[in-house]
Amino acid sequence: MNQLSFIKKISVLILCQLLFCQLAQASFLVEKQTLELESFNTTNGKTIPQVTLGWESYGELNADKSNAILITHYFTGNSHAAGKYTEDDVNPGYWDAIIGPGKAIDTNRYFVLSMDTLANVSAYSEQVVTTGPASINPATGKPWGLDFPVVTIRDFVNTQKALLDSLGITKLHAVIGPSMGSMQAIEWAVAYPDMVERMVSVIGVAQSDAWLVTGLQKWANPILSDPNWQNGDYYSSSAPLEGLTQSLAIITQEAMHPRIFNQLNPEHSALEQPPALDIRNNFKVVDWLYQAASKRATSMDANHILYLVRACQLFMAGHDGNLEKALNKVQAKSLFLPARGDLLLFPDMAKQAHKMLQSAGKSSQYTEITGDWGHLDGIYNVQQQADTLKQFLEQKV
Amino acid sequence: MNQLSFIKKISVLILCQLLFCQLAQASFLVEKQTLELESFNTTNGKTIPQVTLGWESYGELNADKSNAILITHYFTGNSHAAGKYTEDDVNPGYWDAIIGPGKAIDTNRYFVLSMDTLANVSAYSEQVVTTGPASINPATGKPWGLDFPVVTIRDFVNTQKALLDSLGITKLHAVIGPSMGSMQAIEWAVAYPDMVERMVSVIGVAQSDAWLVTGLQKWANPILSDPNWQNGDYYSSSAPLEGLTQSLAIITQEAMHPRIFNQLNPEHSALEQPPALDIRNNFKVVDWLYQAASKRATSMDANHILYLVRACQLFMAGHDGNLEKALNKVQAKSLFLPARGDLLLFPDMAKQAHKMLQSAGKSSQYTEITGDWGHLDGIYNVQQQADTLKQFLEQKV
Repeated sequence: MNQLSFIKKISVLILCQLLFCQLAQASFLVEKQTLELESFNTTNGKTIPQVTLGWESYGELNADKSNAILITHYFTGNSHAAGKYTEDDVNPGYWDAIIGPGKAIDTNRYFVLSMDTLANVSAYSEQVVTTGPASINPATGKPWGLDFPVVTIRDFVNTQKALLDSLGITKLHAVIGPSMGSMQAIEWAVAYPDMVERMVSVIGVAQSDAWLVTGLQKWANPILSDPNWQNGDYYSSSAPLEGLTQSLAIITQEAMHPRIFNQLNPEHSALEQPPALDIRNNFKVVDWLYQAASKRATSMDANHILYLVRACQLFMAGHDGNLEKALNKVQAKSLFLPARGDLLLFPDMAKQAHKMLQSAGKSSQYTEITGDWGHLDGIYNVQQQADTLKQFLEQKV
Repeated sequence: MNQLSFIKKISVLILCQLLFCQLAQASFLVEKQTLELESFNTTNGKTIPQVTLGWESYGELNADKSNAILITHYFTGNSHAAGKYTEDDVNPGYWDAIIGPGKAIDTNRYFVLSMDTLANVSAYSEQVVTTGPASINPATGKPWGLDFPVVTIRDFVNTQKALLDSLGITKLHAVIGPSMGSMQAIEWAVAYPDMVERMVSVIGVAQSDAWLVTGLQKWANPILSDPNWQNGDYYSSSAPLEGLTQSLAIITQEAMHPRIFNQLNPEHSALEQPPALDIRNNFKVVDWLYQAASKRATSMDANHILYLVRACQLFMAGHDGNLEKALNKVQAKSLFLPARGDLLLFPDMAKQAHKMLQSAGKSSQYTEITGDWGHLDGIYNVQQQADTLKQFLEQKV
């Protein structure tokens, strides 16, 4: 790295730090809570005993319990959607820009909830409480591994419903989620139509087509091919960290657009010497991506990635083989916010769901988020649609 | 597969067969020839002794040797750009639709040449003659493996120049290539500006940016991670076919657009039962892609994939670290034909090169190929731009 680009990188880091601090200052303190279920029945007819899942809430539930908004998280995300854990926490929740007092999802008005999914990828993160293949199977006293049942988007919805039931909430003012969270939001509106008043799909799809299912397999394969994976039974030996790292590197790149990727690597040169001398030598940009992935891998579980990949692959809203019929059940008003530059979940897929809802006579809005991030514009640039979102949430149903 | 979709698949196959037969009938017979070089010096300062490369030609070289057009091939392609090998050959060369008597690249007027690259991926195909890591190193009597020098796009250009030298050709009426072939075409116009009168870049780029270099690494990693790869020294043991298959599956999907991918798999259902029961069970569409890749893998060499990935990664036209300066050397008229739906080499990259040439006062045209294939529109739908191409080739220089 030359001096100029080093200075540039440092400047960007400082700017990010300042931005995070600002956000953190504007933010509020939150605490992780847990929901324990004695047993949970999956849509595939299996039973998982002793399910524990983390959740967070922001704002206060009103007297008639009519002001709840559920936020459903993305693939590598968790229930930390907003706020910070301590005063000096510099990383508020991922949608802190739109959730909080006076923000688009106004915690002065709404009681905002979010929950960790089953098999959340960050099994070893302090921020996450999940039950999945890395959890202890009470029947054996050992980690489940692949004996853990395959779970689906509907199962995630059903764990969230269990949380609402425990709180006595029978109506959602809205359910809102990005990416895999959007799958859950749409599923909510189809599965429990009389409970959902408003549905917001951010960078989402209503079904996984052949292209997406095959593309997601590309995320699973490095793990499946890692000799350490051992059919998922690696908990008493070495974890398949190499495969997990490769998987995360692919996920990270595919969630981005070339514009931001190239902006983040201004010093890249196609003519670097080491790669020209031996095909085993990497370009700096490849090392940059894989080193970041390797760091993230330490808090994640490889089997959990496989289970979430599978949950996303198995997704068709309503889970009954007919998307039109499923969307016809929706009673909620819908808002679709895809990202124009999304190369992972193309805006056309959100538009397809939006048009199917409109054709069925449902209320549906569609607006694209713009930016350089691609898919991640749904996380980093969502505040661009803060007004649209605020107005949508204030609409009468 | 239900009966209806089975009938659909069969119908598509029959249609393709008919189409191929028609093309084959309209086509001409060709023969693979070989060029032998006692030794070849790479741009990295290494020497490769005993280089043998295949080539083909269509049409006749005129008396003053002024009618030669060089076609440079894509990543998984080879010198079989047009024609057929036998009367009943149903697979003519990949650009047969635009190369032949009376076609856009008219073999009644032009002497059309094409050559296999060094380290061509199809090392074990009867259609390919190449020298690469799978070839015998004369110094040891064993396959080169990773002792084979890293080679670059410029090296491919220089082997082609050696062929032209051997034929006494000192000017190219045009150099035309798709994808990796486009890199070679641009490199020709920069490296030997006084030899190239016209340059056509189809689905191409003038340099590999950080995004592309990292994306290409995704093609290499499954091979590098295959335990059979053994640092490239697998020629007396089992080849890394699993890694090679995964690599080819990724390449195949990434060269396509979701539209065609979904059209080719109309029977796909996100709700298939086997994948819902065990995360080790695949969706049919995944099996379809990987089985096709596995079949193709038998004629390919894993190290050759790695070497071509690296050649593409190391690409910046001119290879001197300044693209603007490099393109300023171009004397050829240029034509860029990117594919609008290309998700691998985005049209914006071709447009960037086109604009740089225009800014430098060079003659450059830009037109997009449309279609459902994505990157592969540059192969399967190139005839859409036949008139543009024909007129471009007839332009005075």
